[in-house]
Amino acid sequence: MSSLIREPSNPMHWDEEVDVLVVGLGAAGAAAGLEASAQGANTLILERASGGGGTSAMSGGVIYLGGGTALQKACGFDDSPEEMFKYLMASTGDAPDETKMRMYCEGSVAHFDWLCSQGVPFKPTYYHGTSGEPPTDDGLVWSGAEQAHPFKDLARPAPRGHVPQVEHQGGPLLMQKLCHAVSQSPARVGTDQRCIALYQSSEGEVLGAAVESFGKERRIRAHGGVVVTTGGFVLNDKMLSQHAPLAHQCSMRVAANGDDGSGIRLGMAAGAATLNMNSISVSLPITQPWGLKRGLLVNAQGQRFINEDTYYGRLGEAALLKQKGQVWLIVDNEIFEKPEYIEEIAATGDDFSSLAQELRLPPGSLEATLEYYNEHAEKGLDPVFHKRSEYVSPLKNPPFGAIDCTTDKALYAVFTLGGLHTDTEGHVLDPEGEPIPGLFAAGRSTSGLAIDGYSSGLSLGDGTFFGRRAGRSAAKR
Amino acid sequence: MSSLIREPSNPMHWDEEVDVLVVGLGAAGAAAGLEASAQGANTLILERASGGGGTSAMSGGVIYLGGGTALQKACGFDDSPEEMFKYLMASTGDAPDETKMRMYCEGSVAHFDWLCSQGVPFKPTYYHGTSGEPPTDDGLVWSGAEQAHPFKDLARPAPRGHVPQVEHQGGPLLMQKLCHAVSQSPARVGTDQRCIALYQSSEGEVLGAAVESFGKERRIRAHGGVVVTTGGFVLNDKMLSQHAPLAHQCSMRVAANGDDGSGIRLGMAAGAATLNMNSISVSLPITQPWGLKRGLLVNAQGQRFINEDTYYGRLGEAALLKQKGQVWLIVDNEIFEKPEYIEEIAATGDDFSSLAQELRLPPGSLEATLEYYNEHAEKGLDPVFHKRSEYVSPLKNPPFGAIDCTTDKALYAVFTLGGLHTDTEGHVLDPEGEPIPGLFAAGRSTSGLAIDGYSSGLSLGDGTFFGRRAGRSAAKR
Repeated sequence: MSSLIREPSNPMHWDEEVDVLVVGLGAAGAAAGLEASAQGANTLILERASGGGGTSAMSGGVIYLGGGTALQKACGFDDSPEEMFKYLMASTGDAPDETKMRMYCEGSVAHFDWLCSQGVPFKPTYYHGTSGEPPTDDGLVWSGAEQAHPFKDLARPAPRGHVPQVEHQGGPLLMQKLCHAVSQSPARVGTDQRCIALYQSSEGEVLGAAVESFGKERRIRAHGGVVVTTGGFVLNDKMLSQHAPLAHQCSMRVAANGDDGSGIRLGMAAGAATLNMNSISVSLPITQPWGLKRGLLVNAQGQRFINEDTYYGRLGEAALLKQKGQVWLIVDNEIFEKPEYIEEIAATGDDFSSLAQELRLPPGSLEATLEYYNEHAEKGLDPVFHKRSEYVSPLKNPPFGAIDCTTDKALYAVFTLGGLHTDTEGHVLDPEGEPIPGLFAAGRSTSGLAIDGYSSGLSLGDGTFFGRRAGRSAAKR
Repeated sequence: MSSLIREPSNPMHWDEEVDVLVVGLGAAGAAAGLEASAQGANTLILERASGGGGTSAMSGGVIYLGGGTALQKACGFDDSPEEMFKYLMASTGDAPDETKMRMYCEGSVAHFDWLCSQGVPFKPTYYHGTSGEPPTDDGLVWSGAEQAHPFKDLARPAPRGHVPQVEHQGGPLLMQKLCHAVSQSPARVGTDQRCIALYQSSEGEVLGAAVESFGKERRIRAHGGVVVTTGGFVLNDKMLSQHAPLAHQCSMRVAANGDDGSGIRLGMAAGAATLNMNSISVSLPITQPWGLKRGLLVNAQGQRFINEDTYYGRLGEAALLKQKGQVWLIVDNEIFEKPEYIEEIAATGDDFSSLAQELRLPPGSLEATLEYYNEHAEKGLDPVFHKRSEYVSPLKNPPFGAIDCTTDKALYAVFTLGGLHTDTEGHVLDPEGEPIPGLFAAGRSTSGLAIDGYSSGLSLGDGTFFGRRAGRSAAKR
């Protein structure tokens, strides 16, 4: 038997007994703990770091919500659960979990209200001009590819990035507020406490956990269940090599120290199935400021491969997973402005050929790509990739430049999207699809809504939304 | 606890006791059984169908071997384990299992001899002109992308497809011979016997299996171990939707009835980790006869995306996984010949524009692609995708045609590549990388050598090679 699983002795001595034990105090853990204690369950949240926050506190704080939230309405945007559902079903992969998705979209308005009721502030103003993480304290931003081809024609676009009211990065404030709400709730929090094993009966029921703190071990019985909210595995090199090796090429791993897959491995050891372990979110923020969307993103063949005006997460996924990170953004002197996150210019030239030569692209290919693009761009059209006309203009003012967007030079920000298989109520499922009694999970320890195609805010979104459901399920048990 | 796992009673009544129980009689199961019984182990092989063969018997029979096998030498080809290793490491994914790969390449010559010693006949002649499955009874064929860019420059090419001596499909003969070898060995075979559960001790050791036959259940103790060789999961719609949804778009699933993931699920229920469950092999045999490699494969953007002279498995993977199966092969009147596996012509035209219009491609894009290609093809060059010069010639003789290679119309043949995580000795590993005592696996129940990039013969190759090792490990235990 795995060292992560222990069989209880008979009789078993427990150091502590609770109803619900939440492992990990990021956004999902806070949501689970708040909801469990709101149900009247004796709730203990343990965090292995010295304080709550986790990766959520290192994030931009964007929460993907919609369907007509109070914030969307205050900003004058019309949205519906159905339009949100259509967008997410079209943009998150080849076969997203339709049941979870529908529940998420239909519950999104109420979930936003719940976040507000926990004290998370959102300024009812809209910021235009970036994908996620506005530099201002505005509350609503575009955080996906809603306005870009092909999604703009599949669902009525609306901005759905809900950002806590603070300049720049909203994650710290979000977690400060959620942790404060936890501290005001009956739920208790223990920090510097690492869950090292689960107690599981011979019938497969998860009974509690072994917890280590400063070298001392305690055994905690959780009568309702253990809720795993320990984050993903982007810091676990071995798991990354096995499941998502291209992630190693990314210069930035979006992660707190805890994202080493510990909770996923606990769950697997208890018999859980995993889903989409190969899925990663890859952000490549090369089109900020947005004027740079007028550039042309080309691959090592000198071809375009995506509409440059789409969400930077889609750019990153296409660039890394389909082009192995060998891509450049071609600009001319007119549209060039200093990119927010990129330093290096890979090549400059007074004509397309010298640019192509300096990039060592196949002779004539980049030239053909640019000539074809320019020909149609004169008419404001991009017949191949359907970039919106506001970002379509011919590149004809030398010098031309190639902004280096390769994995060697550009910021690629990665985190994992796969994990434990859960149902809508947060039950962790075994390979046959049956719940493992007493085991729950949420957040990036689980396979989330987005599998192959991300929008900013889906992790904080599904983590808190399904975290609440997991906490409630454990409390009710 | 999962219904696939049972705890033995104390005392436990077993209906039969053996040393090694092999579940599934395809190529991997035959190899495991032969090797286990050769070690002197009392070996029982169970097959749920009414006879041995499995998916192996439905395959082309190609076995990917090299490094200088007797057959390669007889056909005048020079190869070495190192060149084979370089090719496979470069062509099978972003992070293949280097230890397994090295062992496979270094043991390949001896493994070929072993296959011969089991009575599998190979005619020492070379067939040029197809990838895998020659229509003749020749023994050696190209079965991968060794001669194509970029691999031809990374490793010295050699044909490594070893095919049993029979016209057309070699799989039936291969399995006839291996099953005959089994029948001559001390190993016993039971057909119409389905393994429905594993017996596992509370310490995690796999003790045996529950087996059902015509409604009657028997419990079989396997003192050395149970070897799972039950194939992949391409016939399990639910698993396919969860792990590899695009496979549903393929018109042909390469599978015997047993490929429903039953053995993978048994292993998972016993605590096994899985790897690469999202990986599939997709063959798109559109360049047979080989003259059609002179065509241009284009996507819905009217762009090329791969060198058309590469192995049809790579074409299929690129077409389905990166282009969502929306691709066409453009030919002119000179190079057109009737494709072996495709019936439909999607469009014809006297010039590129009318062809593009009929295909509803973006205006001007296919035209630009073809003009650029033709310009360089006049010099025998393909600067962008590096197709070999023998397949590079300008398309300029109308009428032009587009052979329909979309998933709607063309043959896409798919099977799964992911499965149980095993080590080089066939031990099934838990999520911590520790062997599950008494549990072994091989073949497409396991994650094999190829993850993201297939060559024909790798499944029969790694299945028999690591199947033998699994059988030996179980026998020795």
